[in-house]
Amino acid sequence: MKGDQYLLLPGPTPIPERVIRAMSKPVVNHRGSEFKQLLTEVTEGVKRVYRTNQHLLIYPASGTGALEAAVVNFLSPGDKVLAVSIGVFGDRFAKIAAEFGAQVEKMDFAWGEAADPQRIKERLDQDVNREIKAILVTHNETSTGVFNDMQAISAARGDHPALLMVDAISGLAVLDLKMDEWNLDVVVSGSQKAFMIPPGLCFMAFSERALQRHKEAKMPRFYWDISSGLKYLEKGQNPYTPAVSLYYGLSEALQMMQEEGLDNIIERHRGYRDMVRTSVRAMGLKLLARDENASHALTAVVAPEEIGANKIRKYMLDQFNIVLAGGQQSLDNVIFRIGHLGYVRELDLLAALAALEITLQKLGWDVQLGAGVSKAQEFLLNKAKKGE
Amino acid sequence: MKGDQYLLLPGPTPIPERVIRAMSKPVVNHRGSEFKQLLTEVTEGVKRVYRTNQHLLIYPASGTGALEAAVVNFLSPGDKVLAVSIGVFGDRFAKIAAEFGAQVEKMDFAWGEAADPQRIKERLDQDVNREIKAILVTHNETSTGVFNDMQAISAARGDHPALLMVDAISGLAVLDLKMDEWNLDVVVSGSQKAFMIPPGLCFMAFSERALQRHKEAKMPRFYWDISSGLKYLEKGQNPYTPAVSLYYGLSEALQMMQEEGLDNIIERHRGYRDMVRTSVRAMGLKLLARDENASHALTAVVAPEEIGANKIRKYMLDQFNIVLAGGQQSLDNVIFRIGHLGYVRELDLLAALAALEITLQKLGWDVQLGAGVSKAQEFLLNKAKKGE
Repeated sequence: MKGDQYLLLPGPTPIPERVIRAMSKPVVNHRGSEFKQLLTEVTEGVKRVYRTNQHLLIYPASGTGALEAAVVNFLSPGDKVLAVSIGVFGDRFAKIAAEFGAQVEKMDFAWGEAADPQRIKERLDQDVNREIKAILVTHNETSTGVFNDMQAISAARGDHPALLMVDAISGLAVLDLKMDEWNLDVVVSGSQKAFMIPPGLCFMAFSERALQRHKEAKMPRFYWDISSGLKYLEKGQNPYTPAVSLYYGLSEALQMMQEEGLDNIIERHRGYRDMVRTSVRAMGLKLLARDENASHALTAVVAPEEIGANKIRKYMLDQFNIVLAGGQQSLDNVIFRIGHLGYVRELDLLAALAALEITLQKLGWDVQLGAGVSKAQEFLLNKAKKGE
Repeated sequence: MKGDQYLLLPGPTPIPERVIRAMSKPVVNHRGSEFKQLLTEVTEGVKRVYRTNQHLLIYPASGTGALEAAVVNFLSPGDKVLAVSIGVFGDRFAKIAAEFGAQVEKMDFAWGEAADPQRIKERLDQDVNREIKAILVTHNETSTGVFNDMQAISAARGDHPALLMVDAISGLAVLDLKMDEWNLDVVVSGSQKAFMIPPGLCFMAFSERALQRHKEAKMPRFYWDISSGLKYLEKGQNPYTPAVSLYYGLSEALQMMQEEGLDNIIERHRGYRDMVRTSVRAMGLKLLARDENASHALTAVVAPEEIGANKIRKYMLDQFNIVLAGGQQSLDNVIFRIGHLGYVRELDLLAALAALEITLQKLGWDVQLGAGVSKAQEFLLNKAKKGE
């Protein structure tokens, strides 16, 4: 029996039973006192995850909506923007800024590599007239499984006045991110990643400094406008009808996150990464990302050329009902991606790794059954011993 | 015992148990074959409700998002637009167009009145150079409980090439709307109204003619872009992560709608309107809208001046846990609005009307208990007799 489809995607992730039950509550009036309390509580809860005391708005939209919100609220047509890209999502952020009339200068890094803070620093140093208004960066690049060191990039900005805008959609609460301490200006995220709820909500936090810029920013905006968002938030409302049932889920998920503790959550994800990487390596497969910048959220595995990544994904889906992500664009059929963020257990990963070994052997790859799984087991055993 | 909050709002509306159960299913991969089948099926289902064979896209957003999508996909900055407004939502549609650089000419009608197709015809006749690119109209104005006759307005357009763009967020499947037969070009709607699912999805249908205009339209767009929406739809996907659980709910709700039949649904809502109006009148209260343009979706009741609408709403909420909507802007405390769309039963309305009589008497209005309720009962009895 295959049972329900098991998502090992870098989002959407499996949903905890507690969250599903919470979302089944009857919808309340989104302009009434119950919703006000709920909105206030979840806004504060999400701010804690961002480690910020500044501003945060929740939109009924997917993560890309929040990227558009970041662009249109803080920039004017013609503004110079430095768009740092290490993959598909970095490219998307740049494309949105260009679509709304920003003068976008791309700074590209090879797919599989992280951005080099030194190169960013050098570019900003050259900008003696301080013409660059914003730096766009991806926190965790889902297409390659690589994360950027946001603290170092913020330090590289130094006293340059450009706003630092971060796509943390798949990185928040999986990798460390300290919005206020690291001076990040705009940070966006989505519900279907570490927040363990279904897709449909996205978040945008922004600094006081960004809010001041907003007042001068002239890109057209209505749905995403933070002025109206903040005005309604004061009343405990959303400007437009919020996705009430997802808020119930969010409230429950935040409760679960508080029970586990943010530091523990990040540490748990780091463990998943290390366990998966050591196990996959022992199967004789290569990894796309280097250890030092390998994402906690997902692992991009280079498939043996003679098999191809998509055959592996298809077999895993057909035989085990496990969904793995493929490679995008130039990485199609080159890599497959194992998501390990949100509501994922060690047990699930052990099972998936075991299934992967079977798949590889079946498809003709020379791997001894147990070679990778035993490494994952060792990893967990050592972790358990340390915890004693 | 008050029990759960009972929503008699013009959306969000109560959610059927079947829909809640459907939404609890595990999330599947939004780039996989199950979702493809689901997306294809619900897209076709929603198109049947629109009575269109043309194009339809579903967005993870609230209804206002779809209004923005309508504006940015089919217009260029500087385009002349005739924005017909009969209330808050007509004003909003106009505001979005202006924000994105359209030259908006407002045609306002008094709140509580419907738009006069003859005035629209005259204005278009004056436009000898055919400079007006689009006409924006609200199908059902939620702020006043008045609907516009879209068939007559379409006829008033005649052979003028302006696109007819309709905000049918609260009107679709409550009032008759035949997108193709009436030559409507762009029609938007939302999930939390007649579709009986929680807020979080919105729909935009558009004609082949509108799609041709889109190719020349220059307003900036990314999240709402229909080119990318259509490209992904062909693959059975959304460009950005869709709100999967709401799609499960939508699928179940469409099934329920098919079981009832679209004509029956519209007829049922017409009955709610007539029943509520006759009952409220018998309580000695005035109605904001005239009979001929009174919405099937909600009834705007003018509160006795000496009591005020908000006191009535507060008592209904405190004593009976029934949520009624208030008046917006100049109508605040002047009217209250009884929503009767979506998953509402005759029984619920009978109970609410009985509660309203108690409330009115308690607040000092001279009404005989049963005066209004008995009219509603008579209405239902007559309807039952006709059905025999």
